[in-house]
Amino acid sequence: MTFKYERIDKSNAALLIVDHQEGLYQLVRDVTPVEFKNNLLAHAELGKVFNLPTVITSSSETGPNGPIPKEVFDLHPNAPFIKRQGEVDAWDNPDFRAAVEATGKKQLIIGGITTEVCTAFLALSLVEAGYTVFANADASGTFDVRTAQNANDRMRDAGVHVLSMFAVACELMRDWRATPGAPEMMPYFDKYLPEYGFLARAHDAAIKNGTPSGLPPTDS
Amino acid sequence: MTFKYERIDKSNAALLIVDHQEGLYQLVRDVTPVEFKNNLLAHAELGKVFNLPTVITSSSETGPNGPIPKEVFDLHPNAPFIKRQGEVDAWDNPDFRAAVEATGKKQLIIGGITTEVCTAFLALSLVEAGYTVFANADASGTFDVRTAQNANDRMRDAGVHVLSMFAVACELMRDWRATPGAPEMMPYFDKYLPEYGFLARAHDAAIKNGTPSGLPPTDS
Amino acid sequence: MTFKYERIDKSNAALLIVDHQEGLYQLVRDVTPVEFKNNLLAHAELGKVFNLPTVITSSSETGPNGPIPKEVFDLHPNAPFIKRQGEVDAWDNPDFRAAVEATGKKQLIIGGITTEVCTAFLALSLVEAGYTVFANADASGTFDVRTAQNANDRMRDAGVHVLSMFAVACELMRDWRATPGAPEMMPYFDKYLPEYGFLARAHDAAIKNGTPSGLPPTDS
Amino acid sequence: MTFKYERIDKSNAALLIVDHQEGLYQLVRDVTPVEFKNNLLAHAELGKVFNLPTVITSSSETGPNGPIPKEVFDLHPNAPFIKRQGEVDAWDNPDFRAAVEATGKKQLIIGGITTEVCTAFLALSLVEAGYTVFANADASGTFDVRTAQNANDRMRDAGVHVLSMFAVACELMRDWRATPGAPEMMPYFDKYLPEYGFLARAHDAAIKNGTPSGLPPTDS
Amino acid sequence: MTFKYERIDKSNAALLIVDHQEGLYQLVRDVTPVEFKNNLLAHAELGKVFNLPTVITSSSETGPNGPIPKEVFDLHPNAPFIKRQGEVDAWDNPDFRAAVEATGKKQLIIGGITTEVCTAFLALSLVEAGYTVFANADASGTFDVRTAQNANDRMRDAGVHVLSMFAVACELMRDWRATPGAPEMMPYFDKYLPEYGFLARAHDAAIKNGTPSGLPPTDS
Amino acid sequence: MTFKYERIDKSNAALLIVDHQEGLYQLVRDVTPVEFKNNLLAHAELGKVFNLPTVITSSSETGPNGPIPKEVFDLHPNAPFIKRQGEVDAWDNPDFRAAVEATGKKQLIIGGITTEVCTAFLALSLVEAGYTVFANADASGTFDVRTAQNANDRMRDAGVHVLSMFAVACELMRDWRATPGAPEMMPYFDKYLPEYGFLARAHDAAIKNGTPSGLPPTDS
Amino acid sequence: MTFKYERIDKSNAALLIVDHQEGLYQLVRDVTPVEFKNNLLAHAELGKVFNLPTVITSSSETGPNGPIPKEVFDLHPNAPFIKRQGEVDAWDNPDFRAAVEATGKKQLIIGGITTEVCTAFLALSLVEAGYTVFANADASGTFDVRTAQNANDRMRDAGVHVLSMFAVACELMRDWRATPGAPEMMPYFDKYLPEYGFLARAHDAAIKNGTPSGLPPTDS
Amino acid sequence: MTFKYERIDKSNAALLIVDHQEGLYQLVRDVTPVEFKNNLLAHAELGKVFNLPTVITSSSETGPNGPIPKEVFDLHPNAPFIKRQGEVDAWDNPDFRAAVEATGKKQLIIGGITTEVCTAFLALSLVEAGYTVFANADASGTFDVRTAQNANDRMRDAGVHVLSMFAVACELMRDWRATPGAPEMMPYFDKYLPEYGFLARAHDAAIKNGTPSGLPPTDS
Repeated sequence: MTFKYERIDKSNAALLIVDHQEGLYQLVRDVTPVEFKNNLLAHAELGKVFNLPTVITSSSETGPNGPIPKEVFDLHPNAPFIKRQGEVDAWDNPDFRAAVEATGKKQLIIGGITTEVCTAFLALSLVEAGYTVFANADASGTFDVRTAQNANDRMRDAGVHVLSMFAVACELMRDWRATPGAPEMMPYFDKYLPEYGFLARAHDAAIKNGTPSGLPPTDS
Repeated sequence: MTFKYERIDKSNAALLIVDHQEGLYQLVRDVTPVEFKNNLLAHAELGKVFNLPTVITSSSETGPNGPIPKEVFDLHPNAPFIKRQGEVDAWDNPDFRAAVEATGKKQLIIGGITTEVCTAFLALSLVEAGYTVFANADASGTFDVRTAQNANDRMRDAGVHVLSMFAVACELMRDWRATPGAPEMMPYFDKYLPEYGFLARAHDAAIKNGTPSGLPPTDS
Repeated sequence: MTFKYERIDKSNAALLIVDHQEGLYQLVRDVTPVEFKNNLLAHAELGKVFNLPTVITSSSETGPNGPIPKEVFDLHPNAPFIKRQGEVDAWDNPDFRAAVEATGKKQLIIGGITTEVCTAFLALSLVEAGYTVFANADASGTFDVRTAQNANDRMRDAGVHVLSMFAVACELMRDWRATPGAPEMMPYFDKYLPEYGFLARAHDAAIKNGTPSGLPPTDS
Repeated sequence: MTFKYERIDKSNAALLIVDHQEGLYQLVRDVTPVEFKNNLLAHAELGKVFNLPTVITSSSETGPNGPIPKEVFDLHPNAPFIKRQGEVDAWDNPDFRAAVEATGKKQLIIGGITTEVCTAFLALSLVEAGYTVFANADASGTFDVRTAQNANDRMRDAGVHVLSMFAVACELMRDWRATPGAPEMMPYFDKYLPEYGFLARAHDAAIKNGTPSGLPPTDS
Repeated sequence: MTFKYERIDKSNAALLIVDHQEGLYQLVRDVTPVEFKNNLLAHAELGKVFNLPTVITSSSETGPNGPIPKEVFDLHPNAPFIKRQGEVDAWDNPDFRAAVEATGKKQLIIGGITTEVCTAFLALSLVEAGYTVFANADASGTFDVRTAQNANDRMRDAGVHVLSMFAVACELMRDWRATPGAPEMMPYFDKYLPEYGFLARAHDAAIKNGTPSGLPPTDS
Repeated sequence: MTFKYERIDKSNAALLIVDHQEGLYQLVRDVTPVEFKNNLLAHAELGKVFNLPTVITSSSETGPNGPIPKEVFDLHPNAPFIKRQGEVDAWDNPDFRAAVEATGKKQLIIGGITTEVCTAFLALSLVEAGYTVFANADASGTFDVRTAQNANDRMRDAGVHVLSMFAVACELMRDWRATPGAPEMMPYFDKYLPEYGFLARAHDAAIKNGTPSGLPPTDS
Repeated sequence: MTFKYERIDKSNAALLIVDHQEGLYQLVRDVTPVEFKNNLLAHAELGKVFNLPTVITSSSETGPNGPIPKEVFDLHPNAPFIKRQGEVDAWDNPDFRAAVEATGKKQLIIGGITTEVCTAFLALSLVEAGYTVFANADASGTFDVRTAQNANDRMRDAGVHVLSMFAVACELMRDWRATPGAPEMMPYFDKYLPEYGFLARAHDAAIKNGTPSGLPPTDS
Repeated sequence: MTFKYERIDKSNAALLIVDHQEGLYQLVRDVTPVEFKNNLLAHAELGKVFNLPTVITSSSETGPNGPIPKEVFDLHPNAPFIKRQGEVDAWDNPDFRAAVEATGKKQLIIGGITTEVCTAFLALSLVEAGYTVFANADASGTFDVRTAQNANDRMRDAGVHVLSMFAVACELMRDWRATPGAPEMMPYFDKYLPEYGFLARAHDAAIKNGTPSGLPPTDS
């Protein structure tokens, strides 16, 4: 029973943005609102920075679920946008299915609200349809931590890869010397992973005009 | 090793209400009492709103476990109600087994107190008997979070689907335009998922007589 | 430095319902939505069950803050309702001030969204104006636990009494034989404090047709 | 891929008490000390109340790991007690292996300190040796919750059943009318699961001389 | 503004056991049931081990609140026991007031269910009446942590000392060589503070027949 | 002992930005990095949106503490910036003291890293110097929650007002019809309090082209 | 009511090490064992790095409480060490009292096990005796977080300053250019506050041979 | 489907230290900094105490990720050290791959920052390459607990063993009488697992000059 490590391949991957709507956003309580907005935009920008085909969909967006944030469209002005009028599982919508198939990719990176419905239903359908699914755990949100964990376990049992934004980004990049690499990804991380951004900023400041801390020198 | 996504099919599903008793309810400490009463009634009403055959059972209800809340019977005045006199695993009771079989359904949606005993023992027996089991994680409660997680993992390892009330409801509904759909489900969610209900109420109020927030217009 | 225990006196108390609006409700994340809806209605019904003068106010209710839930008006069809058009601190609004003064009461029981703004600003103003303020901690909600704690500490430092719904109810009732007493309050607790309601239900069921648990008898 | 639900069978099960030592006890920080002492004794008493063959073992008990509490020996004065002088995995000790084999049972219920070492190493060895292992999650303790979860996952991946004391007890009992049943198990639960014990006590008191709560009668 | 440290003085203190009833016990969810039963009995036994005058009271004990556990009466067979028929605040009951006054003590150690009602109302009344109140925080329980914290803050603001069972016991004992001292208190702690009890047991075992751990000797 | 509610007065308040440095930022672990960057910028922008005199200071910024983020200077290009070379308590630095005094304001709104050192030392010095201090709790960060709580309690005991960014903003604004009011503050909240921003966005979208949710109409 | 900020003054402060014993250490569960050992040694080394008179005491150290770790004596080979034979409150021991008085200092920095007994009893006695007490919250440990919080509140109510190790160290140092200052304190922080130490190490490494991160240059 | 328990075999295992860098260390927030430094050094020292071939690698160490701490090199002065210039997954670096292969071992014990990237990518590649991987969960750190759990689940699904430092150490040692055994491992645990170290110290002290606790003797 040998194991094959299927890595995300930027030339074979598409990004799906599922029901990241301003009304549904209020339902997300397994992370804080500030973090989830950050994660939602980080998910969308992954498509731009890696030049991935991107498909956007919403559910009943003139109803309480509300519109997709304009920042998402600013990042993806030309992405196909499928406004579902009733289907909960986006895969039940022929236009969405066609848009995904039109990307020609077999690896799909997804995030949605809510995790156990919009993300999980679609992920399970996609696996059944033969795709490899990478669920960006940071970009899906739901009512509480317990629901997220059960949803992630359900997806995992079906073969979905559940991983963080940083893992998705690094598995896409693979090498800091590739393109996109450090010059493209450091600004991306500075925006969405500020602990890494401030690490880099302080590092660059130290090179530019730092003064020693007072610690005895180490030779490592 | 292909994956088949078995969705809950409202025409092939029955609802089981297991030991949702007023004494046992005191043992539930992995969620708060207010939430668990809400979840317990939401579970029962799923049967009504989707018109699912429903079977109710209790364990030694004249003892400390106590009676089933009357609200459950108000929702299901004609459901078979099996008062077990001693069997912990409801499947060990022939009347209960007969009632489940009489529904003619192969998918069973269950919730019970406690998760690791009343829900899990029955779920494992049902899987062995060939049923597909959907454990409504919100409708089962137990002593603490650790016990719930271990019980859910035990069920998952046997093939049980562990998912939230919202996931169960949406997988049953599938499309907001179906019947039941938005007109039936929005009042259901307003009652049991008030964050969604208040989202809808505020949305409807905005349509009716809202005034702009002061944010600059967005064109998305 | 002697201490005077000022208890809530049902003949000298009024209830204030502050900005319990369906939009603002989404901001409340220091308790779960199910619990906060429960607590919000429990607060309103305190006024009814104890026949307290009640004043309702909202902030910019046609904007994103949204309307007050209809359940509140169903409980208080004749209460003065002051729709503030801009004042954050309700005490800055002359109509609200007049309505509070018109109650003729010196003890005010309050709850609002958000705790640190709508509740705290008003509470501090009321203390300054000479009232004794009882903040129903369960009936105020805000962004996170830290903010609630800091807000409660700020109020406490000004002499506000911060206590739970159960404490407010019991300090109003004082004696189960009073009116309202057990016959009025048990149904109230059954509705809003289900762990107590189910305790009473199971107790009554045991009296009616209970069978012994199997524990050896105790003579206490 | 059919599922077989292997239940604990009291006629085919033995109990293993592994390194429940008074020094090692200090290392347990994934539950509180009061609870872990309770759980440790509840584990030992399971063997007595169900009359299961029981094997006790300790690791270097004259060293810092310390002795087994006397309460355990009071419950099992005649159980084989294997004092390991160095083997971490009890299965590496021939005397222990012989004692387990001498029970003639194929289902083993185990608990130990620490979960990821004393319990898990033995559990994995037992599964390899063909036993079915039921890990009483309440009766194993370790440094922190994360370590416990990883250890339980490692055991689960090897086929170990990880479940709570209440689940073990109920799967052994199966029916409240069996022997042991209610008359034996209610006192057991009164001692080790006081929320259930006090439920029964209050229930029995209500039958004996209860007075109605004041709630309106329900007819369920 | 000099500070006077008023310590608990065993010759001037009485113990109050307030509404530690088996029904109300189910409402306690700020600690686990196993711990609260332990704490409740530890509170009662403080009176015995320090020979403090003890007063027991219950609220409507034939109703859902239920009886006081028999273990409490076993510890205090001759203590005055005031069964309140309606008063929430025990101080409103003349018999209770008389029983407290009859102790002739000015320092009162109290615990009750629930913290914010039964404990806090009484504590505030007692402070008003001129007593010094020591609230055993471990021996009071309530619906959730937030309610306990707000109740403790309310009591503190009135001058109540809020401290743990261990602090109460040590402030009463003062010196391990007093009576009661080590010979009386070590068994008490072994029963109710098992981390300390097992520390002592392992220590005694090491003296009796310990073997070195293998650590290099230290000379401190 | 009458209480005076001293509200923040935008005409009498200055903003202090204390050691919000990119190295020190890594030490902040009582909130997440994404949230703290948000809070740090929200603090700085308060000065801009309310046109408050603002003073910036850093501690040994060429050392490991690192530089102040450029976003802060972009918001306050002309604010006095005092680079302390050694003083931990900024008030010990004469230039900083002069800059604060030069604002001519008596109310100071502060935030810093770390809470218990840079914020608290300065706050205590400012109170001693006769200022009223409003500590923006969201804009101070430290090693862990416990340290933050103890630091906030220490400040409170000295008369510092500890409150959230939203409370500071609302106490400054006072009325949504003031200037700045809704047109200025809604974009501010959209940026830094996205749960409120998305509430407004969805509200505005509902007005523009919303369709009813399916809930029955309510007349409140 | 003016406020005086009494800062720790290294020329007027002594350090007290109270019952930091290897047996009692096992009782500390409000922080992890790794952290508490770190904090306990950091407390002791404060005395050395600031050259403070230091007094060490233990309680019944040949009993289960166990010895003081040798690392403490290695730091303070000449400090007075008072072995109390029974007094719980160290201030009740004349030798300890004499040793504290002999330091001639009026500010006392203390840490002990357990927080609510060994630290709090002594702290309250010291305040009564006219000392200013600074409780190093990191250097006191106890059974659980609740007990620590109640103990800290009790001390605060008596005027004790409760603050973290970092706050104590910085209030003692005051200026990075003082002695001790950066050259002495950076190695201290590297040892006991590794997040700060690694910040400094990485900063120094960047100065020595860092390469740019790839972020665009900033000019702040 | 029989289970084979593959234990870590010290003669067939190598240790991998992956990106334990002083900059990346700041990103670790699923454990505290004090604990993670402890765990990182404990991981490195495992290689020394068990004399395992050890391979060290870093990622862009002159950039913000920073250097490996000198303590690691002090433990492993002669270990191969591969400075990766860009590859995120160390297995993509031929020098690293060669260094691992040169160890000749088939079992690899790994730890890295961050868990879901540096540890998980490498672990999955190693499993694919035919190695058995033991992930020391204590020695990997990442942004938050959720990310760690998802990463560990991803590794587990590929057959990686995820276990704690104590489990790794004990599975390597197997018997306290082996070499290394108690004389080597007790000092190791004293350094990195202080709860166990202090248990041993207090035990040894009790043997040397302990006095009885006062508990009645037990004969177990």
